[in-house]
Amino acid sequence: MQPKVVIIGGGFGGLCAAQALKSAPVELTLIDRRNHHLFQPLLYQVATGSLSPGEIAAPLRSVLSRQKNTRVLLGDVEDIDPVAKHVLLADGAVLEYDSLIVASGSQSSYYGNDAWQRWAPGLKSLEEATTVRHKILYAFEVAERLAQSADRRPWLTFVIVGAGPTGVELAGAIGEIARQTLKNDFRSIHPQEAQIILLDGAPRLLMTFPEDLAQKAERSLADLGVQVITGAMVTDVNREAVTIKIGNRTDRLATRTVIWAGGVTVTPFGRTLAIRTSADTDRQGRIKVGPDLTIANFPGIYVVGDLALALDSNGNHLPGVAQVAMQQGKYAAKAILRKVQGKPEQKPFEYFDKGNLAVIGRASAVANVFGRHISGLPAWLIWVFIHLMYIVQFQSRILVFIQWAIQDLTFNRSARLITGTAPTDFSFNKEIASQKTLPIGRNDEVSAKAM
Amino acid sequence: MQPKVVIIGGGFGGLCAAQALKSAPVELTLIDRRNHHLFQPLLYQVATGSLSPGEIAAPLRSVLSRQKNTRVLLGDVEDIDPVAKHVLLADGAVLEYDSLIVASGSQSSYYGNDAWQRWAPGLKSLEEATTVRHKILYAFEVAERLAQSADRRPWLTFVIVGAGPTGVELAGAIGEIARQTLKNDFRSIHPQEAQIILLDGAPRLLMTFPEDLAQKAERSLADLGVQVITGAMVTDVNREAVTIKIGNRTDRLATRTVIWAGGVTVTPFGRTLAIRTSADTDRQGRIKVGPDLTIANFPGIYVVGDLALALDSNGNHLPGVAQVAMQQGKYAAKAILRKVQGKPEQKPFEYFDKGNLAVIGRASAVANVFGRHISGLPAWLIWVFIHLMYIVQFQSRILVFIQWAIQDLTFNRSARLITGTAPTDFSFNKEIASQKTLPIGRNDEVSAKAM
Repeated sequence: MQPKVVIIGGGFGGLCAAQALKSAPVELTLIDRRNHHLFQPLLYQVATGSLSPGEIAAPLRSVLSRQKNTRVLLGDVEDIDPVAKHVLLADGAVLEYDSLIVASGSQSSYYGNDAWQRWAPGLKSLEEATTVRHKILYAFEVAERLAQSADRRPWLTFVIVGAGPTGVELAGAIGEIARQTLKNDFRSIHPQEAQIILLDGAPRLLMTFPEDLAQKAERSLADLGVQVITGAMVTDVNREAVTIKIGNRTDRLATRTVIWAGGVTVTPFGRTLAIRTSADTDRQGRIKVGPDLTIANFPGIYVVGDLALALDSNGNHLPGVAQVAMQQGKYAAKAILRKVQGKPEQKPFEYFDKGNLAVIGRASAVANVFGRHISGLPAWLIWVFIHLMYIVQFQSRILVFIQWAIQDLTFNRSARLITGTAPTDFSFNKEIASQKTLPIGRNDEVSAKAM
Repeated sequence: MQPKVVIIGGGFGGLCAAQALKSAPVELTLIDRRNHHLFQPLLYQVATGSLSPGEIAAPLRSVLSRQKNTRVLLGDVEDIDPVAKHVLLADGAVLEYDSLIVASGSQSSYYGNDAWQRWAPGLKSLEEATTVRHKILYAFEVAERLAQSADRRPWLTFVIVGAGPTGVELAGAIGEIARQTLKNDFRSIHPQEAQIILLDGAPRLLMTFPEDLAQKAERSLADLGVQVITGAMVTDVNREAVTIKIGNRTDRLATRTVIWAGGVTVTPFGRTLAIRTSADTDRQGRIKVGPDLTIANFPGIYVVGDLALALDSNGNHLPGVAQVAMQQGKYAAKAILRKVQGKPEQKPFEYFDKGNLAVIGRASAVANVFGRHISGLPAWLIWVFIHLMYIVQFQSRILVFIQWAIQDLTFNRSARLITGTAPTDFSFNKEIASQKTLPIGRNDEVSAKAM
């Protein structure tokens, strides 16, 4: 009987771990609530209509289909008994393990104000990305139908909360939509007049990047019409506005489109795991792991990726980025393999930081690669290359990527579809219906009358 | 003041009409409930995970953005006053017209059994296509989790109602998913064992095709494991089965996945229009039009595409296909243009039938082109070429198409994502939860126990 290894989560950490156990003499089960691995760094491109969901996700089954020791389960892990060594799925199924790798990741956090979520969707899943896409495109549609410029303003104001890489990339992409993609598409409004506001509580954007690159990013964003407001705490989000506090001043930003690229927290199973193992956690719920990435007193449970609170050699917390998750996943897999093979333990996990990248717009990015600060087209080319390398291993769809790079350069966003019903209350119809007569047209050029 | 032309619907008929009025001295408004033109013939590829929604749809605004006399409105036309010459949108807006082209199309018809829709989604919109995709992929997932072969059977049985081109193409694609795409993806089930049943009330499949081609199509389908049952009337559809009647015999097909590629009916606005204009209609609700495609007594209202009941020169009804809609749209546009320019009327509309095409699977199709019967690879190449020609004019994404052809040849279906929540009640969890212990694995190989 081969040892049983269970991996929870098919994100960067879990999938890397599974692949590292490819030829291992173990019986491997990967569980995920979704049937696909998602390339999260490109979610903002789905949200802004450059890419289709299928272009940044790969079915986990097909990625792992040739790995004969591995089964993929579509399921939701609800609980764990770390002493009896089994996990419980929401549908009642029970899975035993000898070794467990928990890579259940993170989700958007509204800092206790979960009501804001309704008005400010996050950007962590394909569903959220299509919701955001819907909101952005719909806002322009509504604005086109409104007669008064004052009524249009909040529909043409886009607020992004959180100026990390995701927020910056999203703001840049919305800037390009407004200034380039939609330039000629409307008859009543000028999409270029859209106001894009990027908020952060920190003193500057891209806190994980060197300051000179953050400044370059801010200049590039300004060219795209994005206004960056730092040191701003969000105190309220509702249907019609975001309220912020800067020092002692309170500002109300009238807007119909808010996107949350702010903080993250661990998933519900992450919290359950911490309780069941009495593990130490930080404020975000991340679980403290030892230098071998296991939870104290549970040498068979590895925690990797966004859920892990791990330290680098300087005693700093490792950031919740794909690179860390992938390296940790691989490390945990190797540790299990050595255990199975009866080999001595590896030396403690050490993160090899290759750098940071953020794209600001067409052929523009900032990159901190092996300590070198790069910006503009060279940074963008590095970004394209790195993403290309990663994606093709799953997709064998090199053409998608070429197409996408071309599209990026030509401002084409053919995936900007509005499908489904509005998941949040846009009140488009109510809005319009409340006006007795609706002028159709650029101000008063075209007449219209009530029936 | 330029004459006002309103087009209702941005499908093949409406869009062709709009484009034919590109440089006309008119004030043109195109209204659609969706923001995109949809290439319906490829919907089945979205439903089977070969293509992403963005690859077969183009935003109407961008298609028409350079057409300066044209505005696009996202809206739902609810009513019409054909005497006062205006249409009323659901949001209360009123649009005046001098000429109107109604191209509001058709929707799935369940012949009065609308309750069946819940268990048997149609294939007319992107939302339906993703619902179908979800159902198909989820069925394999559920089957993988069930221990008993008898329990799996209904989940691995796929019933398609309607053996026209859409039904044939869908059945062929599901056959390929089961036999090729998913071949190595599961550990407990053998997707190849899936049963695919294609039903029709008619005496044979592809009634609009010559008989020899229909026979060839049936043989190709058989190679993909598709069983064709003709002369079968559906008498019930529910969560667990489809009941059919063949002659006096009643059969119950146990299945969890039914897809409706059966009859169509006109949209609600189509019915309203018929009432307001006292127009003659057929059983499907199609509106009888004269040789100039206008409704009797309303020379300013043109009806084109699936909503029009038009006759060819032999007195036969024209079929509801893209070719007819496009030619009619263009005809109506020209008629309006001649009216505006004070030119004499065109001669009556005549349909130029280029032929029929249906794809059965990888590099296989049947085609009746200008009366020539073609099958196999040559037919498939014609099909690729025609679709390529049509799509690139909107998408300028030639690469998408190349990629897609390659994918088609290599069985790759990277868009097979399960997103969102199940729109119909698959009862996956209930199903599983009702079993106290769930064996995870190929029968009894892997043990599992209740907690």
